[in-house]
Amino acid sequence: MRIDVMTLFPAMFEGVFSSSILGKAKDKGLVELNTINFRDYTKDKHNSVDDYPYGGGGGMVLKPEPLFEAVESLTDSVKTEAMPRVILMCPQGEKFTQKKAEELSKESHLIFVCGHYEGYDERIREFLVTDELSIGDYVLTGGELPAMVVIDSVARLLPGVLGNETSAVTDSFSTGLLEYPQYTRPVSFRGMDVPDILLSGHHLNIETWRRKQSFLRTLERRPDMLEGLELSKEQMKWKQEWLAQHNGRDEQ
Amino acid sequence: MRIDVMTLFPAMFEGVFSSSILGKAKDKGLVELNTINFRDYTKDKHNSVDDYPYGGGGGMVLKPEPLFEAVESLTDSVKTEAMPRVILMCPQGEKFTQKKAEELSKESHLIFVCGHYEGYDERIREFLVTDELSIGDYVLTGGELPAMVVIDSVARLLPGVLGNETSAVTDSFSTGLLEYPQYTRPVSFRGMDVPDILLSGHHLNIETWRRKQSFLRTLERRPDMLEGLELSKEQMKWKQEWLAQHNGRDEQ
Repeated sequence: MRIDVMTLFPAMFEGVFSSSILGKAKDKGLVELNTINFRDYTKDKHNSVDDYPYGGGGGMVLKPEPLFEAVESLTDSVKTEAMPRVILMCPQGEKFTQKKAEELSKESHLIFVCGHYEGYDERIREFLVTDELSIGDYVLTGGELPAMVVIDSVARLLPGVLGNETSAVTDSFSTGLLEYPQYTRPVSFRGMDVPDILLSGHHLNIETWRRKQSFLRTLERRPDMLEGLELSKEQMKWKQEWLAQHNGRDEQ
Repeated sequence: MRIDVMTLFPAMFEGVFSSSILGKAKDKGLVELNTINFRDYTKDKHNSVDDYPYGGGGGMVLKPEPLFEAVESLTDSVKTEAMPRVILMCPQGEKFTQKKAEELSKESHLIFVCGHYEGYDERIREFLVTDELSIGDYVLTGGELPAMVVIDSVARLLPGVLGNETSAVTDSFSTGLLEYPQYTRPVSFRGMDVPDILLSGHHLNIETWRRKQSFLRTLERRPDMLEGLELSKEQMKWKQEWLAQHNGRDEQ
């Protein structure tokens, strides 16, 4: 997979693209990661990438030309069938999810467009980009961190990127429930102890305990993740127990 | 404000902490940003920060000691009134929102704890951290990028961090609606034109057009943001028009 990032701040990506999983994936040749400063594609003498908005108002707006030219430098023609996905990171975009990460991990070429507190000229949205993505409902100073988030979540899904020791981890969201509590040594740390059941060696009981903890944690913290899900018999029992304990009433 | 980040990959933060808004805020002395490698707080000869989970299963689990010791090196005592917020970045955490960013921006000291594909020993969650945050429903290789996202969104709210030219930008989420389309020069770019109204000079019409675009964009892309919101008269009219155009029926 090839990933190009259009940004005015390529230095922001250096540490992230060279450390840890992304750095290793790059070194192993599993993913090519490039940053492109689209200021290099300006043609005026001030190398300006933004300008005042038509109709007035505060803030600056990214001009269409430099971004069109920068993307076109990577592709022979824009909007043909073979073109890469061009992804704009912005608060107005579709919410990024694990499903979207899986979809993007099947592409061979992704181009990310990152603005930096400026707005985007609408023609960039309408005619240059294929996807607009938002990583969440909070305001950031630019699209760089969101692009890194999407790239990290996509790259870790590529074959060979995660080693065996890490891919074995049960991921939240892929199971549909939050993870159960984990404990490691020491058994007792400053009077805080590992639950007896995990030391019992009784694998069946441990499995049941973990399924229950995973379900209860989801019920308490993220009931929205259970909406529309058909509960199993044991899950219904656990929910009843939990409701009784919390003096709640089953609204069903 | 002082921000400390506990991480096994301090190099990941270098580019982000020294560029753009965060770099400037640091240079101006408005925020102090430190990374602490909690491997430095291990006491065994292998400097191991993680170990196998009790009860079996794949993956590794971060041990409690190094993180407790690292956090305590920054605070005289854990869990006193004066203690800083200790924020664990994890998929099981509370969803991070703009409201949370505003809340955190009022603190004087934040400590972020970033794991890296390992799980956390439950005693870290229960007895060391004060907040667990998740930036969205997708799987990442570690808590580093989520910590950067939270730090960026919090730091930009600190007094003096954003200059006048940028703070004037109308932010999505703070108004409750998505932003309206923006345009800048040139008026015509490869046959794609700026809407006439923005060139009309009629400020009242421009304001109305922008309010309408902002509302319609939210209605189309993020109807969830309108839930529970009382619509104004003009918004109800725009919604009716939109529904008529889209052959939909008003479900109200």
